[in-house]
Amino acid sequence: MNEFDLIRRLQSRLSASQASCRYPASVGIGDDAAVLSVEKHRQLVVSTDTLVSGVHFPVDTRPADIAYKSLAVNLSDLAAMGAEPAWFFLSLTLPESYEQWLDDFASGFAELCEDTGIQLAGGDTTSGPLSITITVMGFVPQGQALLRSNARPGDLLIVSGVPGLAALGLIRLQNDQEMDTQTREALTRPQPRLSLGRQLLGKANSCIDVSDGLLADLSHICRASHVGAEIFLDRMPDSASLQALDPEQRWSLQLSGGDDYELCFTLPADLEHELAAISAICEVELNVIGRMTNEPDIRCLRTDGSEFLPTRKGFEHFVEIDKP
Amino acid sequence: MNEFDLIRRLQSRLSASQASCRYPASVGIGDDAAVLSVEKHRQLVVSTDTLVSGVHFPVDTRPADIAYKSLAVNLSDLAAMGAEPAWFFLSLTLPESYEQWLDDFASGFAELCEDTGIQLAGGDTTSGPLSITITVMGFVPQGQALLRSNARPGDLLIVSGVPGLAALGLIRLQNDQEMDTQTREALTRPQPRLSLGRQLLGKANSCIDVSDGLLADLSHICRASHVGAEIFLDRMPDSASLQALDPEQRWSLQLSGGDDYELCFTLPADLEHELAAISAICEVELNVIGRMTNEPDIRCLRTDGSEFLPTRKGFEHFVEIDKP
Repeated sequence: MNEFDLIRRLQSRLSASQASCRYPASVGIGDDAAVLSVEKHRQLVVSTDTLVSGVHFPVDTRPADIAYKSLAVNLSDLAAMGAEPAWFFLSLTLPESYEQWLDDFASGFAELCEDTGIQLAGGDTTSGPLSITITVMGFVPQGQALLRSNARPGDLLIVSGVPGLAALGLIRLQNDQEMDTQTREALTRPQPRLSLGRQLLGKANSCIDVSDGLLADLSHICRASHVGAEIFLDRMPDSASLQALDPEQRWSLQLSGGDDYELCFTLPADLEHELAAISAICEVELNVIGRMTNEPDIRCLRTDGSEFLPTRKGFEHFVEIDKP
Repeated sequence: MNEFDLIRRLQSRLSASQASCRYPASVGIGDDAAVLSVEKHRQLVVSTDTLVSGVHFPVDTRPADIAYKSLAVNLSDLAAMGAEPAWFFLSLTLPESYEQWLDDFASGFAELCEDTGIQLAGGDTTSGPLSITITVMGFVPQGQALLRSNARPGDLLIVSGVPGLAALGLIRLQNDQEMDTQTREALTRPQPRLSLGRQLLGKANSCIDVSDGLLADLSHICRASHVGAEIFLDRMPDSASLQALDPEQRWSLQLSGGDDYELCFTLPADLEHELAAISAICEVELNVIGRMTNEPDIRCLRTDGSEFLPTRKGFEHFVEIDKP
């Protein structure tokens, strides 16, 4: 099967979800490039992310889970900008031409395509070690993208969902231990917080997705905005599986564990009353876990006011997940 | 060095060429995604291509040559649509964090960035087997993209440059044989035919880039346009290195050899008089090598009218270049 056939096959497997795509490409798969129309008063938001077998997912991961996650982590970047998804481009490097593999792989995209209205508008397939690169494109109203650089001292620091669950799931997986559904889904089926991102337009001062660990990602906001932050550890959201750990171990996972794809954002304190409504509309838990400061650093505070110093600074690429 | 630093380092190595970029990103490298503005009456043209070490280039290829070619082959897809380049996104998977490698790699982009005004607007780096995915974005005037689907019977069939040179260069390289500069440059420094593509807007009925071999790519035009073609072999452009081969071997390379990145397009016969001017403006050789027909297939004709049947149908992915 050649490149053209592979991408066409993927497209045909996605046809049900593609019928409902929000911005049909003017020219899609089948020419040298896609041709796309952009409406007035909108800016394009574009992000790209690669997932490599054995680095970003264990080599025996199900193809559908690989596909889901590779699209979800890219959509999470759009969410962090407050963007609405429009198209994605897939570059798939496969060791061989697995027909069955490809069908299962495509099924992992279908659910997210239906939920988000995004369209597969082009791609490329190559032979080589398994690796997936996705480039996503979406829209924001002109000048309204949520950046990292506008956090202000006094802003509330808020996180969606329960950070730390994906890192806990990875430990459980690597040690062949049982895990509950919530933990497993955090690891294999992260939900890109697209509706949350769009609800924050015009409200949040800054936003980032927590993919490298809460502290590492928050430090990007602090650096870009020239502010510091205080995190109150007793306000960190919790779950049954995390409660089973001792507090220091739990905080360490929640502050430094990667792969969560939750949003971390800062909000002017006078908008705190809007949080309950946003949480209800987006069906996602939101917790105020701290506030932004004039200090140059991030401090994590226990209930008694003493500072907790996490041992791991964060999760970065160039760290193989099977080599802790 | 982490992902952020790697992309920043690349960006700083490109700073001279980025100063002259035609469409500066509203938000570039350093946030979750890039934010890009699009003008009215323009459509976006987007393409993505992956190059894998050992598949698309020999493992000992110079980093600058890898970078050049990975951007050039993507720009060639924009050229085939008649698009003007605006931005590119780089996903780089590297076995280790080679600092020196990266500097040489960046230098391969600089020349093309300066020539074309394209901007590196985002990217991702990962650890893993060497592989480069680039997504390019450009513009065409609304509704004017050059497609594969509008060729008409009677159209002239035209090719730029000298197809077959890259395939000859690859054979020479694999056999440790000498090659002349023209042949080496066809292999390692293909020129994306961007100005030609833009000159063809509103004139050519169809266009494709010859990356998989002339016959294979022409067959995409034929299929999409429901036409056939006749190629007159004595009109195929020539070069000193190709003339040294016997005619059947030469035609086989020119018809089926891949990796050329020339444009193959069809033009209404009454526009033939414009070719000389287009060739002069774009500084590229243009040759009418045949015409489009009502027949269902492509026929390659010798001077005496007999048909030549090439043994190789074309160059497709899933063929390792070091396994002929």
